[in-house]
Amino acid sequence: MTSVWSASQEERGLPEQLVYCFGGGRADGGAALRDLLGGKGAGLAEMSNLGIPVPPGFTITTDVCRAFYAQGRTYPVGLEEQVRVGMERIERDVERAHFGDAEAPLLVSVRSGARVSMPGMMDTVLNLGLNDATVAGLAQRTGDARFAYDSYRRFVAMYGDVVLGVKRASALDEDPFAVMLERKKVERGVTRDADLPAEALRELVGEYKAEIKRQLRMDFPDDPWEQLWAAVGAVFESWESDRAVVYRELHGYPLDWGTAVTVQAMVFGNLGDDCATGVVFTRNPKSGETGLFGEYLVNAQGEDVVAGVRTPQPVQGAGSLEEAAPEVYADLVRACTTLETHYRDMQDVEFTVQQGRLWVLQTRSGKRTGTAMIKIAVDLVDEGVIDEREAVLRQEPEQLTEILHPVFDEQADRTVIARGLAASPGAAVGRVVFSAAEATAEQERGEDVILVRSQTSPEDIAGMAAARGILTARGGMTSHAAVVARGWGKCCVVGCEALAIDYQRGQFVVEADGLEPVVVKRGDTISIDGGSGDVMLGKVPQVEPVLPPEYERLMTWADAARTLRVRANADTGSDAARARAFGAEGIGLCRTEHMFFGEDRILAVRQMILAGSEAARRAALARILPMQRADFVEIFKAMAGWPVTVRLLDPPLHEFLPHGQDEMEQLAEAMEVDERDVARRVQSLQEFNPMLGHRGVRLAITYPEIYEVQTRAIMEAACQLAAAGVVVLPELMVPLVGLRQELAAVRGRIVAEAEAVIAETGTAVEYTVGTMIELPRACVTAAAVADQADFFSFGTNDLTQTTFGLSRDDAGRFLPSYLEQQVLERDPFVELDREGVGALVRIGIEGGRRVVPDLKIGICGEHGGNPASVEFCHESEMDYVSCSPFRVRIARLAAAQAALRGERASGSS
Amino acid sequence: MTSVWSASQEERGLPEQLVYCFGGGRADGGAALRDLLGGKGAGLAEMSNLGIPVPPGFTITTDVCRAFYAQGRTYPVGLEEQVRVGMERIERDVERAHFGDAEAPLLVSVRSGARVSMPGMMDTVLNLGLNDATVAGLAQRTGDARFAYDSYRRFVAMYGDVVLGVKRASALDEDPFAVMLERKKVERGVTRDADLPAEALRELVGEYKAEIKRQLRMDFPDDPWEQLWAAVGAVFESWESDRAVVYRELHGYPLDWGTAVTVQAMVFGNLGDDCATGVVFTRNPKSGETGLFGEYLVNAQGEDVVAGVRTPQPVQGAGSLEEAAPEVYADLVRACTTLETHYRDMQDVEFTVQQGRLWVLQTRSGKRTGTAMIKIAVDLVDEGVIDEREAVLRQEPEQLTEILHPVFDEQADRTVIARGLAASPGAAVGRVVFSAAEATAEQERGEDVILVRSQTSPEDIAGMAAARGILTARGGMTSHAAVVARGWGKCCVVGCEALAIDYQRGQFVVEADGLEPVVVKRGDTISIDGGSGDVMLGKVPQVEPVLPPEYERLMTWADAARTLRVRANADTGSDAARARAFGAEGIGLCRTEHMFFGEDRILAVRQMILAGSEAARRAALARILPMQRADFVEIFKAMAGWPVTVRLLDPPLHEFLPHGQDEMEQLAEAMEVDERDVARRVQSLQEFNPMLGHRGVRLAITYPEIYEVQTRAIMEAACQLAAAGVVVLPELMVPLVGLRQELAAVRGRIVAEAEAVIAETGTAVEYTVGTMIELPRACVTAAAVADQADFFSFGTNDLTQTTFGLSRDDAGRFLPSYLEQQVLERDPFVELDREGVGALVRIGIEGGRRVVPDLKIGICGEHGGNPASVEFCHESEMDYVSCSPFRVRIARLAAAQAALRGERASGSS
Repeated sequence: MTSVWSASQEERGLPEQLVYCFGGGRADGGAALRDLLGGKGAGLAEMSNLGIPVPPGFTITTDVCRAFYAQGRTYPVGLEEQVRVGMERIERDVERAHFGDAEAPLLVSVRSGARVSMPGMMDTVLNLGLNDATVAGLAQRTGDARFAYDSYRRFVAMYGDVVLGVKRASALDEDPFAVMLERKKVERGVTRDADLPAEALRELVGEYKAEIKRQLRMDFPDDPWEQLWAAVGAVFESWESDRAVVYRELHGYPLDWGTAVTVQAMVFGNLGDDCATGVVFTRNPKSGETGLFGEYLVNAQGEDVVAGVRTPQPVQGAGSLEEAAPEVYADLVRACTTLETHYRDMQDVEFTVQQGRLWVLQTRSGKRTGTAMIKIAVDLVDEGVIDEREAVLRQEPEQLTEILHPVFDEQADRTVIARGLAASPGAAVGRVVFSAAEATAEQERGEDVILVRSQTSPEDIAGMAAARGILTARGGMTSHAAVVARGWGKCCVVGCEALAIDYQRGQFVVEADGLEPVVVKRGDTISIDGGSGDVMLGKVPQVEPVLPPEYERLMTWADAARTLRVRANADTGSDAARARAFGAEGIGLCRTEHMFFGEDRILAVRQMILAGSEAARRAALARILPMQRADFVEIFKAMAGWPVTVRLLDPPLHEFLPHGQDEMEQLAEAMEVDERDVARRVQSLQEFNPMLGHRGVRLAITYPEIYEVQTRAIMEAACQLAAAGVVVLPELMVPLVGLRQELAAVRGRIVAEAEAVIAETGTAVEYTVGTMIELPRACVTAAAVADQADFFSFGTNDLTQTTFGLSRDDAGRFLPSYLEQQVLERDPFVELDREGVGALVRIGIEGGRRVVPDLKIGICGEHGGNPASVEFCHESEMDYVSCSPFRVRIARLAAAQAALRGERASGSS
Repeated sequence: MTSVWSASQEERGLPEQLVYCFGGGRADGGAALRDLLGGKGAGLAEMSNLGIPVPPGFTITTDVCRAFYAQGRTYPVGLEEQVRVGMERIERDVERAHFGDAEAPLLVSVRSGARVSMPGMMDTVLNLGLNDATVAGLAQRTGDARFAYDSYRRFVAMYGDVVLGVKRASALDEDPFAVMLERKKVERGVTRDADLPAEALRELVGEYKAEIKRQLRMDFPDDPWEQLWAAVGAVFESWESDRAVVYRELHGYPLDWGTAVTVQAMVFGNLGDDCATGVVFTRNPKSGETGLFGEYLVNAQGEDVVAGVRTPQPVQGAGSLEEAAPEVYADLVRACTTLETHYRDMQDVEFTVQQGRLWVLQTRSGKRTGTAMIKIAVDLVDEGVIDEREAVLRQEPEQLTEILHPVFDEQADRTVIARGLAASPGAAVGRVVFSAAEATAEQERGEDVILVRSQTSPEDIAGMAAARGILTARGGMTSHAAVVARGWGKCCVVGCEALAIDYQRGQFVVEADGLEPVVVKRGDTISIDGGSGDVMLGKVPQVEPVLPPEYERLMTWADAARTLRVRANADTGSDAARARAFGAEGIGLCRTEHMFFGEDRILAVRQMILAGSEAARRAALARILPMQRADFVEIFKAMAGWPVTVRLLDPPLHEFLPHGQDEMEQLAEAMEVDERDVARRVQSLQEFNPMLGHRGVRLAITYPEIYEVQTRAIMEAACQLAAAGVVVLPELMVPLVGLRQELAAVRGRIVAEAEAVIAETGTAVEYTVGTMIELPRACVTAAAVADQADFFSFGTNDLTQTTFGLSRDDAGRFLPSYLEQQVLERDPFVELDREGVGALVRIGIEGGRRVVPDLKIGICGEHGGNPASVEFCHESEMDYVSCSPFRVRIARLAAAQAALRGERASGSS
């Protein structure tokens, strides 16, 4: 705030032109000068060059910002003169208004503009140029003294805050101007700002200025030029504000980029009935259909549209701008056409009409629904505006979820009682149940239910399948409930910590600060939104998604572009069939643990676990074998001709045992053993950190027979189908390998068993044996591990847990603070952490391919369906990603985009 | 076994000499030809050259082995002739005996010999040359037909097994020869092998040969030459045995090393009363005193000494060889002196006297006690045999524990009932107690107690301190009990899985296969051996260790050699003082969690945890502050002038809360809150994987006030002492950092608080703020983290857990299988895993020093006291290691050795 006007220093290397003008159908610069003029300045110049009627203005370049800091916060020689010339050009373009003129005052806005937008930078000062004299001129020209003084009040407050740096009342962080405004409303006995008369607003201006004088011991600058220079200085100063510095450091943006300052004429949509303000999209942002789509208000400013007091009118059609002012409308159509053609995308255009003259304030690519996103891109291809590659790149893969899952009607009322993590998209309504058994029973009676649990475990699978949606109080984006639900495309909200579940009373309570606790009982209806994480009371109406007809064409283009294969994670024949329907090119992860649950086999599994000898374990496994073989037959059939990666048993054995007293008693009875023996075994299998415990390949080192029997089930199924002419490509995958020797030991036994089955059946089946890479040790010793592996599949869920030393089941308690405080930018369980986990993945790939150059490498963690992570996988030269069936289409698109971006990057280098 | 005698191939590049002879005071080769002659052959040649009377022989070189494989398993041209010549030289040196002669047969041994010893290689065939004719000559010469036929029987069995490859009975893996021997004893009605008469042994020879014929359809080769060539071929074949191949792959030994074959004359110590056999050490292996120390038996073979049927006589002193055969004794003294002078170390020499003539069979550096190890090395320096550096290098650092901790008397009887992991060395005897409270109470009554727990937690600290030793049923080498006990130098055995503890009955039961269960009740006396892991019934007598007077000189040499600093892990003033006494150069890890326990503060800690607001947490912390400040004053005083690294709070908060119903009730009462609130908080803090949970820096992100108050306590203590003239060097360490931003956020608050204390006290204290590197993510992003850290301290306990994805508390269940099956060679919690964890450590060091070239780097995991790990730290160019006080002396020695080895390696390169 202390910038001193000075120009005594020699300006080495500074170009002569420090100010770039725009407006009146021409400009000194254009989009190419983004680095010099900032994003905003370059954009306005570009529009100006296109003949778009933008309010005139000028941009002080980033060169000046660099010089400002290089020279002890002073302005370079010649700047003052160039700014004066710029202002004169504005005055010429905006007829009948002059900067500082009391009758017809020209008001300007002052904005910062770096090459990328950056939080912490000074935003905008509007209506600069107002003072006690010019405000009267504004009042007269608009015929609205209230508007003039409200503008003046807002200007003084904004200027006082961002340019002069008036302090907030420290303890409460209260804006002193806001406090005065509230006080004034009380004085005047009104509740809405809009009800304060002009006189009261004029008083407020005086009070604001007095507060500024009290705090800063300076008079509020009345001279518009003084206002302008101080605002310019404030923009430059804000380049080094704490927040901006932190943000730059975080993103690695260099200090010397600097910011530009753009000064632009204010235009008014409220100078009479030949004035208006509005927003228009060049196509329909909901449906994607062609034709302008927008709204406007006569004799109004932008904030009137936002305030929603008056109802805007449509731009096109009955009662529209088209009818009311056909010439202005024609100008608007022309401008929109020019802009869309130039920017080659649907635009969101803000405009103002001042005394019959159209001014375009801003244009940008318009936000759109998933449906519109697809239709617009395909239409633009058909119109010859963009090519097919560009159409693919224009998609926001995550937005596909909107058209792949049902959503709640946006228009409907909703009573949100809590919010959790949006774990699996969709919308679900049903009666609350608190156990898997209830869920199954209610569903059998034809009831839709929402299963509410503290967390879920593999034992809940049947109930989860029966429920319409799943809601948990604990767990993160890769907790059991989240992973399973995503695999099924089922709506799921997890980690909703506000829920206090009382299983015994059959209810949950939500308490929020200062609100009455909400009690939801068993059987009450709730709605959960898997897209937002909202939990709502009652039944909220839904909208079923429809795939737009253009979808298939777009995906054909995407598939042609991508090099990365996309597989699905699928555990059953029906999952596999669904995955194929969504375009999956094989299964990248078939988890076998679910094959150990199910009423018909869990008893045998438990007998195996409780067995005291290898022989007894083998006997129990032999009873499970035929059932598992049948499971694999279904899966291989559905995936005929495509590879199927089967992960051998991974979870610790205690996950298969009951933990409650009653269940243990039942088990003891069923197994005809002493109840205490069951309890003792359950106790002896307990672990402090099951995630780091006796699981994965470690099970196979201690109980080799488990993988042997699994191998037999897989190979018997494969040989049976192969004999019938089905192409079967089994890939046997060993989880949690950290040591080459682990894999070597287990691989030998798997191959021996597989060869035995082939010999017995007399049918040769090609199979491979590989490993998950999900431990840091496997990554750094990948060259040794590769020696024993036919393929690598990165298990980035567990790799993220071990690399960060972070349990995904426990992280819910502190990860939100991390994201809030920006210690983490993104949840690493959602988007692969490139810097840490990604570095280990690359070390692993490099190590593996050093020894086996054509080693097949994929990813089967949840990240396989996250677009940014898919891009990483493409860049890392993996062969495939694997994700839940419902994300296959998203991954296909993301993979195509990664390939196209890669081509562009290498093409431009 | 199918090697064909052939020499038709051209032998390209094979030298002329294929056989190297030794014996008779000269040899063709020497120690330098180890690669060509193998370890054994080169050693025998070396001794021969020294004039030591070794039985003559010759070595077929490794060149021949390579040619053997290169030429389809045939022998090169000229080998047959050279072997014949070699055999003739043997016959010349051993008077009156000829290979294959029926009257005076020359018998030979055949041994493999690679440059390093290797399991899976053919070991030894003794007495080769025996057949139905020569056995009679042997019987006559020894006058002992029983001995002759027993030798023959053994030869046929050994030859049948290792040379001919007779199969074992597959199902039972039974040696068929052993089965026949047992059958013969039953037939003859005897129980001991030695009671079988010559006749029975002769029968056995016939039966053995019949079995060979039955299996292999070949006659046992009677021709000594045929025997010899088949044995040579078997040695070469064994180079590619499965076990040898696996072993070489594991160690990266190349295939083309090959093995040599050494053929050597057998000598007999049982040909009459002018014959003998014995073992002698060139110094006393127990005390290190000078003078021969050994035993011998007249008219006996080596196995008679081992069998222990006759009592051997001393080599020196009353009733000794010195008296009985002064000339032989003089020869032996001469040989021993020569060998010790040549090998410059105390030797363990095997000898045989045949008809008054001394033969030295083998020499090697002798095993010795810790005391002898030190004394011998220092004496050798004083004798001018080795230099001080060599003396340091000769130490086995782990053996120091023998002289630093009490041990059980080796002679005493012991009833071992179970074995756990030897977690902390020493010997402890006491009455069994099952809780910390009992331990404290009993100790106050003057009782020695052993605390037996399933596992320990920080709440047990007082009881652990009161106990003489600690025994746990669960947990690994870095479990809580193990770490704490080592820190105190207290005897501890952990992970004794055979213990079934029943707290309610106050007893534990040990059940072993086929044995009566042993029940040990509260109050029973047991002994535990922290050196072996043995758990024994009753009181086993102990021997107190004594530091030999040479110890100090040796350590002075060591300290002069090392470059790595050695610090201690110490949490209290008394630990710190002890660490200084052991030579610690500062504290590398002061854990502060123990400062939160203790009766006077745990209540305030719990109030802090249960508090619902930051203000309430701060109020509780304020009550703990003065106590912690006093703790730090004690520690800083003890470490005056040396750096002290204080680790800010690390464990998850639930560790500080009670878990039992009663304790929760007491706490609720003491805090005057609802018992259900306590239960709810305990419940809400529970974690699935506490190791990967809400701990370390994560606590500071959510509750910044905890580290702020700790910083205040540290800095107030430091400033108070500094004002009094004490040099205080505090280093504040943030644990579990995985993200640069975590450290940045926390560092700012720590520095602000520290500066506030400095400003308040007016005393400037230099302090630094650094971080533990204990997560893989911190290693791979070390360059970013280093930007915020004044130092790195590798926490290799947690880094091992996360790199392997292995919970140290749960690994006890399967790590033993891993070690048994050689999937792992060493427990990675004991010795740092160079390949995996070590790779990450190096990545971390490289990253950190890339940004901050002089970044101070140390290690504070348990590995800091493990010699092999210390060597790794030295090689990785760390600045210091930190370990428990009781291992400081071991680490000092290991660091010195690492430095000396490094010098040698670079000197020789």
